Order: sequence, then structure tokens, then C-alpha cells
Amino acid sequence: MNEAAKTLDGWYSLHLFYAIDFEKWRTLSADEQSTMINDFNAYLSSLEKVHESNKGSHAFYNITGQKADLMLWLLRPTMDELNALETKLNKLPISDYLIPTYSYVSVIELSNYLAKDSDEDPYENPYIKARLYPEVPRSPYVCFYPMDKRREGNDNWYMLDMAERRELMKSHGMIGRSYAGIVKQFITGSVGFDDYEWGVTLFSDDILQFKKLVYEMRFDEVSARYGEFGSFFVGTLLDDEKFKSLMHV
Amino acid sequence: MNEAAKTLDGWYSLHLFYAIDFEKWRTLSADEQSTMINDFNAYLSSLEKVHESNKGSHAFYNITGQKADLMLWLLRPTMDELNALETKLNKLPISDYLIPTYSYVSVIELSNYLAKDSDEDPYENPYIKARLYPEVPRSPYVCFYPMDKRREGNDNWYMLDMAERRELMKSHGMIGRSYAGIVKQFITGSVGFDDYEWGVTLFSDDILQFKKLVYEMRFDEVSARYGEFGSFFVGTLLDDEKFKSLMHV
Amino acid sequence: MNEAAKTLDGWYSLHLFYAIDFEKWRTLSADEQSTMINDFNAYLSSLEKVHESNKGSHAFYNITGQKADLMLWLLRPTMDELNALETKLNKLPISDYLIPTYSYVSVIELSNYLAKDSDEDPYENPYIKARLYPEVPRSPYVCFYPMDKRREGNDNWYMLDMAERRELMKSHGMIGRSYAGIVKQFITGSVGFDDYEWGVTLFSDDILQFKKLVYEMRFDEVSARYGEFGSFFVGTLLDDEKFKSLMHV
Amino acid sequence: MNEAAKTLDGWYSLHLFYAIDFEKWRTLSADEQSTMINDFNAYLSSLEKVHESNKGSHAFYNITGQKADLMLWLLRPTMDELNALETKLNKLPISDYLIPTYSYVSVIELSNYLAKDSDEDPYENPYIKARLYPEVPRSPYVCFYPMDKRREGNDNWYMLDMAERRELMKSHGMIGRSYAGIVKQFITGSVGFDDYEWGVTLFSDDILQFKKLVYEMRFDEVSARYGEFGSFFVGTLLDDEKFKSLMHV
Amino acid sequence: MNEAAKTLDGWYSLHLFYAIDFEKWRTLSADEQSTMINDFNAYLSSLEKVHESNKGSHAFYNITGQKADLMLWLLRPTMDELNALETKLNKLPISDYLIPTYSYVSVIELSNYLAKDSDEDPYENPYIKARLYPEVPRSPYVCFYPMDKRREGNDNWYMLDMAERRELMKSHGMIGRSYAGIVKQFITGSVGFDDYEWGVTLFSDDILQFKKLVYEMRFDEVSARYGEFGSFFVGTLLDDEKFKSLMHV
Repeated sequence: MNEAAKTLDGWYSLHLFYAIDFEKWRTLSADEQSTMINDFNAYLSSLEKVHESNKGSHAFYNITGQKADLMLWLLRPTMDELNALETKLNKLPISDYLIPTYSYVSVIELSNYLAKDSDEDPYENPYIKARLYPEVPRSPYVCFYPMDKRREGNDNWYMLDMAERRELMKSHGMIGRSYAGIVKQFITGSVGFDDYEWGVTLFSDDILQFKKLVYEMRFDEVSARYGEFGSFFVGTLLDDEKFKSLMHV
Repeated sequence: MNEAAKTLDGWYSLHLFYAIDFEKWRTLSADEQSTMINDFNAYLSSLEKVHESNKGSHAFYNITGQKADLMLWLLRPTMDELNALETKLNKLPISDYLIPTYSYVSVIELSNYLAKDSDEDPYENPYIKARLYPEVPRSPYVCFYPMDKRREGNDNWYMLDMAERRELMKSHGMIGRSYAGIVKQFITGSVGFDDYEWGVTLFSDDILQFKKLVYEMRFDEVSARYGEFGSFFVGTLLDDEKFKSLMHV
Repeated sequence: MNEAAKTLDGWYSLHLFYAIDFEKWRTLSADEQSTMINDFNAYLSSLEKVHESNKGSHAFYNITGQKADLMLWLLRPTMDELNALETKLNKLPISDYLIPTYSYVSVIELSNYLAKDSDEDPYENPYIKARLYPEVPRSPYVCFYPMDKRREGNDNWYMLDMAERRELMKSHGMIGRSYAGIVKQFITGSVGFDDYEWGVTLFSDDILQFKKLVYEMRFDEVSARYGEFGSFFVGTLLDDEKFKSLMHV
Repeated sequence: MNEAAKTLDGWYSLHLFYAIDFEKWRTLSADEQSTMINDFNAYLSSLEKVHESNKGSHAFYNITGQKADLMLWLLRPTMDELNALETKLNKLPISDYLIPTYSYVSVIELSNYLAKDSDEDPYENPYIKARLYPEVPRSPYVCFYPMDKRREGNDNWYMLDMAERRELMKSHGMIGRSYAGIVKQFITGSVGFDDYEWGVTLFSDDILQFKKLVYEMRFDEVSARYGEFGSFFVGTLLDDEKFKSLMHV
Repeated sequence: MNEAAKTLDGWYSLHLFYAIDFEKWRTLSADEQSTMINDFNAYLSSLEKVHESNKGSHAFYNITGQKADLMLWLLRPTMDELNALETKLNKLPISDYLIPTYSYVSVIELSNYLAKDSDEDPYENPYIKARLYPEVPRSPYVCFYPMDKRREGNDNWYMLDMAERRELMKSHGMIGRSYAGIVKQFITGSVGFDDYEWGVTLFSDDILQFKKLVYEMRFDEVSARYGEFGSFFVGTLLDDEKFKSLMHV
């Protein structure tokens, strides 16, 4: 295989975005609403159990602005499990009040640009395993966006040779590392799975750091010349109580 | 005719994508749902008979994410039959619960780039016939995307001469062949039929191989400089039982 | 007037595309459906009379895939008549079950690139008259797409001089002529009328010829460097009986 | 101020496009329809009075094709009046049967490219006043489209110096003037007001002249290299009787 | 951190756009309408109290044309407060009659291009504080648009070095300053937060000044070569009485 195309791939990933149909929701009785919220929270609890046993992970956030109200990010060892979880959600009665607005299909990915040569099986390396099968944090803020590497005239990432790409990625990665402990980044690959080539999911205690990180990277040649970005979504953490409060009308 | 434009063309092809309207579906009684599912499965059985007699073929998958829930891929000797099958589906009562989300009209195509010169009628060659009138596999996973060859500034595929295109396609085809036995590829031509120039339908036992194949190809000049890609859809195989289970609420 | 901009213009043209709302249609009684179909067929009969008297023409096809179900192409001596025919259709009761999906406003056009110098009034030339005020065929298959000539960087059609454009169009026209008797082409001009510059409507007994013609032309410099294409629609011929059968649920 | 950016600005302009919801309209009794049509015609009469007193102007047309059925063009001395007129229309009962499809916010504008140097206050020049505060004609046909000047690579209008732009606009204007008496043109500026930089509204007794004018201009460098065009709308004149007839079902 | 990426960031910002569903609104009794309007005006009053205490700010305008009817611009010290305010609005009964049409998530930003070197903490500078935590004016007119800096071929803002960008921004800023006292500008940064990189919100007593300012800037190299613009929205100021009047049917 082309060396450039080697990646390490971990859990499959599905980002689901929904708007809440408050107009229809208001027509329900408080009892009906309660039952639906409880069913949904039971669904979240079953996700939480998997998260705790490290057989998958997930995140649940309240998106700011009109692109969506909710983002549920699901990580599982197989695409079949993601499909089943999406279907299970679609069948919950509360789904009649959730309007799908966007979704993203991908897989946790580590690129090989920064890989060290070694005889070691990387899938056995504990550091790499922790990144391929991650425990998603419950940070107060999330940011998600899909992106491509540009293939346009003289700015064609895929026509660069491996050494050039490695060099460019090194400086790009250094910006990312300078945010270690401030912004936690998850890269998911979606070539062949969805409309962009990668998804980026960021977590932080300070939402402003998303802007600082993405803006600083934009001056880096990898983004400046080769990055093409899709829609950006930002949101705040939800838990059972916050979700109840969000749905309380 | 311009040598470059010669293709071998097999069965006509129609990809149909639908979202399931679970909200409306839930309002039906279990009996009503059963009747509709049985009618739909009878429709699938009639497709299966054609598939078994090798007078056409089809595939039926559950798409992951919010772009669609179902993909039905139909292959037939004439466009009229595809049209009739689409209309028949539209008239099934279950269609009131299926929202059309995307479709693709094309025809199975073998390009002439890799053709050997010979006096033989290629339509009589058993190997070629099997590719033009294929028995679509029932692999666990499917991937579909439409694509164009770029015509932009210095990256204009259609301004290259035949020898250059043949050379480029040779290396491109070698990547495809390195996935033989892992990913089964079907190319359908849609110039003059639909909005992109080709559709690509991939099947595999391992969904990750779609990403590996498409990503590796992206570094190949044919894709890197000349490929323009539409939406990507991935899904898991459905049969009567899995469809019943999917529709069970 | 700029010589390049001279065209011969014939009948005004309106392409109307509709999806059939089978879900709503199914709620009607067989009698209600019959009445509406008969009213619609009476509308078509009135079009047919105009077609037979050569005071206009039209075509009615069943579109394959989800972009539309029906295409009605109308040709008349004035835009006012087209407007009136569209309004009349909108007022038929069956229109409650037809969802508009696309339309195209243009006028039958002959370019002057291949014109011979002569003192003759081209509008009096019987060959030209037959092309400006055509009797649209009832071929089994139709193809429609809108297109632009590109104005982009070094590929700017409108910055070429007349001699270059004439030379390019000559080779382009030769491909078209090689399909004489196989594909019947109608070019309608829409600069100032609709979002693309031209509409192309093709008819054939063999739907595969649309793909062969458009693909072969794509390697011709006029298309390769200067063609920008909109959506492609293909379909099969409808008559009263086929329309009844299509609407029968 | 940058000399290039000087313009003369007249009445504010609002183009409103609506589709008629004939399906819902048909559910009304003839009496209900009559009342709503009369209310709407009273609204038009109040516009007509302002038009006659030259304190504003307007135009009302039936758009061909599926982009819209109605175009109402409103001109007034202030944006507040346009806003109020739009709100008043939205509150007419007939608005329940009119679906907004497009709108355009701008202001009548004369560029300074062709201005003569003089000490005169141009706003006092009767010829200029008549163009800034125009009496819109009741021609049988209308054409509207929005446009930008391109800013792309070597084709960047805004990087040309004033002399170059003036020279280019001179030849462009000569084409326009050659249609004097045939096509009446109104240019409205929308930089800072709407998504394109200008709106162009054309009137003629002969709808074919729109195509001839726009096509001839397309070969002129200003359009060929620097023009970017939005959607084109064409339509036929409506008056009280024609509107009644259009709404009669 | 990359010097170029340094910004001063103030209050978080959320622009919300809504269309009024007059058709549904008309079905309410005058009493029901009154109650809903009063509830909404109470919501606005609570915003006004925060505005007066300078712990946040907001603006409420009637948008001209069909893109939206209402724009509510909210500024708060945290994204959580904006999220809560949006949710609170979604839960007001009047929200059933407000259709979300666009939103923009950002943060008040001062770039460092024009910053003076100093040891001073800019967040303690009263002039800067007043710009980071602004009291939004109640001017008669507002204009909002999002924008990017271009990254395309030779026109790539992010590949320029700091000195070049500083020089270009200086001349750009001078145009802005020449409108001091005429147009009040607020820049909000949205890299990592929303789909464009910045939002621009302008206020003036004279709506024509928006066009003059944006058009003059378009000839400046920063806009001419490097500006990419999204949709433009303009509107007129609303207060309790004007809102009541707008909603009165």
C-alpha cells in the first residue's frame, strides 16, 4: 500500500445533530413529556454504561444557534453498532420531536505522518490504544467541523510527496500540541464514508480556545493553502438534569 | 467515434435512497405495518427471482447517518424496466412512509482504457459479460458515490490525449486490483443520464476497506488532480428479517 | 450588432418538471382519480391539436429517478401562450398532486456559427423554418440538460474571437451530425431568460445514444474546456394510456 | 471618498417574488376569493396612486416557469416605506396563498463612470432626476437578474484602476444604448444591502430583446471577464383584470 | 502563539434571524396574540435591563425582504448565557409563529493589526474595554453580513506575512475611520464557532451609508483580493410599540 495512505483506525464514529421541535413538543401533556424524557435518559444511561466499561464512548451537547439543538456523538467498535444505535434513537417516541439536521460518519484515525519507525505493533502500544479507543471527556464545551485537504491548481495536497506532507504536518501538529491540556482533539477519518475527508471534534473548558486554536492553525501552511472547511458547530455539555431542563416548557 | 469515448455498456442502473418516516409509521397499527412490510418483502422477492435467473440484479442496504435510511440498487437490461420498478415501488402503500432523498441513473460501464486489441466481440467474452451483467454480491457493507473527471485550468482530464489517460488509468487500476477479493467495485456511467459522470458502488466484508481503498486512490494522480466527488453513502446489508426488525417500532 | 451574438430564434420554450404526490393521490377515490386524469388528458389533447396543426409543439415524458416524475415540454410562438398554458395546468385539479421540481424558460435557437453568407432571408429558408418551428418527435426516450459556456481564467469562451469560436463549433457540430438519424437535438437559448445559457433536449429510440453522444462531445474542446453543465434528466415517452397506467394505484 | 465608489442614488428598491398556492386557493369559496382579490387590488391601487403622483413607483408581473408566479417591484424614497409596504402585503389575507420565493433589496443607482465633470449638482439635473426617481413603464415584458463584478485571479474588477474601468464601461454602455427605445434598463445597487452587488430590471415590448441584449453584452469584456450572474426571471405584465383572471380557478 | 493570530476578545455574540409566520398568527384571537406579544416584550425588557447595567447588550430589528423578518442580536459574557437566552426564546409561545432562518455564533473581536506595542494590559484600557463590551446603539438601521479572508491561488490572505497584512489592514481601517460618526462597526470573530471567519454588524442613521461604506471598501485590496462575503441583511429598528404594530393583523 502507498505509504502515505497508511492510517491507524480505531472506533467507528457517528455524529448526529437534531433540532428540537418545541412547537410540537408544547402540545404534549407534562406526563407525556416526562415519559419521553425518561425513555431518552434511559437510552443515554445505556450509552453511559458502555462508556464506563470502555467498550465505546459518546458525548451529548446542546448546540448554540439555529443549525441544531442537540449533538450526540457515538463511538463503537463496529459500524453495525452505530447503525443500531441510530435506529434505536429513531424509534424512541421523543424522536417525533427531534428533526435531523446533520450527521457525520467516520472512524477514529491516527495518521502515519508522525509515526516512528519500529517493529512494534502500534495497535498494542498503550498510548496509541488510548487514542484509538478514547474515553471522550465531559468538558463543558464541544466544537465539531468536517474538513478536506485541498486539491486545486498549485494547492494540491495529494500531489505533494510524502516528505513534504510530513514536514508540513509536523509544524501543524506543533500548534495542536501547544494546546495540550487546554483543547482535547479527536480526528476521525471519513474518506469513503462521508462528504468530507476528516471530522474534527474538540473539547475544552474554555470555548474561546476553539477560536484561538483554529485561528492560529489557519496561518499554518497546512490550513492556509490546503484546508477546506465545512460547517462549524459549537455547544455546551448536557447531562440528564440539563436535558430535562432544556426540554422543560 | 472518438476512440477515447468508446465504452462497453451493460445493464441499466438505478440507485434509490429513502429516509423512513418513523413518526408517521408509528401512527399505524401493528397489523397495518405488517401488511405493508409483507407487501414490500413480496416486491423484494420478485427482485430476488430476477436476480437468481441472472436477468437483472439488485442490492438492498440500510444507510448509516441522516442522508438516508435505505438504498435500493436496481440493475436491468432496459431503462424502461427500471422506470417501471421505481413506479411500482412508489405505488406500494409503504411508500407513504419512505421519503425520497437521492437517486442516481446510470449504466454498468467498462472503459476501454485497459482493453486489449483483438478481433473478438467483447460482448461475447465470458469475463466481460460477467462484469457487464453482474450478479451483485450480498456483502455485509456497501459504499456508493458519484464522481466526475475534472475540467479545470491545467487539470482538465478531457484535454489529455488518449495515451496519457491510458497511462494514468493503468496505475489507478492497479490500486483497485490490489483490493481484489477485498472490495468488489462496480462502475456505472452516467454522462448524459445524471449530474455526475460516473457512479461507484463498492461491496466488502470489512467496511474499513472502503476508506483504505478510496484514501489510497486519492494520492493517485487520476483522483488527486482529476477526481471530483459527490456525496458518499455507506450502509449495512438488509434482508427480509433485518428489514422487519428495522421497521419494528 | 456584434456578429457573434446573432442568432435565429423560433418558438418560445418551457420545460416543466413535476413529481407525483402518490401519497396524497392514493387518498382519492377511483372516480375522483378518473375525472382528474381525464381532465389532464383533455389538456394534452388540446396540446396535440396545436402540435398537429404545426402552430406549436410539445412532448410529455416519464422521468427516471427522484428528480421528477413528469416532464412536459411546451413550444409556442409567444411567451404569453406558454405562460397561459402553465397557468392552465396549475389550475387543473390534478395539479394538487403534482409537485413542481424544475422548469426552464428558453427559445428555439440556431446559432450563426455555421451559417452561410447569403442574401436570403433565413426565416424563409424551409430547412431553417423546420428547425425553428419544429415538430417534436414522439421518440421512446428524452434527455434534457441546461448548459453554459465557461468564462473562467484562460477558459473564457466569450473572450475568444469569432473565427476561433466558429472553428471550435465546426468540430463540435461534426460529432452532432455523426449522430444524425440516431439522436435528434433541439437547442434552446436562455440567456436573459433562465439561469443557464442554453437548454439541450435530445430524443432517441435508444437511450444509450444520449450517453454516447454527450460523452464523445466531452472530449471535444468546446465541451472539455468551455462546457458547464447543469442537471441531466432522462425519461420515457408517455401517452394517454401510459399516463393512465402510471397514475393507476 | 474613493472616486470609483461614487454613485448617484435614488429611490430604494424592493423586488418581491411569490408563488401562488393554487392548491390551498382552490379550497376557498368564490366569494372568499373575490374578497381577497379585491383587497389585493385595493393595495395595488394605493401603489398606483403613489406612482401617478411620482412619489414612488412599482411594477407587477406574472413570472414564467416555476421559480415564482408573481413579481412585485416597489420603489420608494425610504427603506422604511418599502418595509412597511412589504409588511402590509404580508398582512393581506391573500398572503396565506402566496409563498415567498425570492426578494431583492437595493437602491436605484447611476454609476459615475460616464459622468461629465461639472460644477452642477447632478441631483438637480432633470435628466438624472428622471433616472433616479423613475416612472417605471407598463411594458408587456419584464426581466430581472442580480449580478456581481468578478474578483477572481486575473479577472478582478475591483483591482482595475478607474481609467480601465471607465474605458470598459464605455463600450459596455454603448451596447446598452444601441437598445434605446427597445429595452428600458434600470440598475439598482445592492452592495451592503443584498447578496449580489447590483440588480438589473429590464422592460420591453418584445421579450426576445432581453435575450439579444444580454447575449450581445456577454461578449463584451465587462460581462465576459467580469460579470457573475444570479437567477434570471422573466414575466408578463399584470393588471387588475389579468390578475383576477390569473387567480380565477 | 503566532503573533498574527493574537486577538482581543470580548462578549460572546449570537445573531438570530426569524421569519414571522403570519398565516398561522392570523388564526389566533386578538387576546391570544396580545398575551404572546406581551410575553415577548417582557423577554425584551429583561434584555434591556442587562443592556442598561452594561452586563451585556442586544439589538432588535425588522429585516427588509424575504430572508427574515426579525433579527435579534445578543451579546453576553459567556456562551452559556447566549445558549440559555436562545432556549428561553424558543420556549416562548410566540416562537410557534417564528421560523428560524439564519443564525451566527461569534465573539466581539479586536484584531492586533493596529495595536500599539505597550506593556499595558489592553483589557484594562478603557477605550478597548468599551469596544470589547459595547453598548450597542439604537440606530434606525442595521446591516449584518458574515465574511472570510480568501485562501485561493495567489490571493491567499493567510500566506501573507504579518507586515503585509498589517499594511493592507491599515488602509482598510482608514476607510472605516472615514465613516466615524456615520456608521458604527462591530466586528465579531467566528473562526471555530461558525461557517465564516467574521461577522460584521453596522449601525447608522442613514441606511445608504452601509452601501457607500461597503462599496468603497470593495475597491480596497483587503476586500477586492481577499474578501469573501456571505449573505447581507438590512433592517430597521424595532421597539415595543413598533413590534406590536408589526404583529398587529
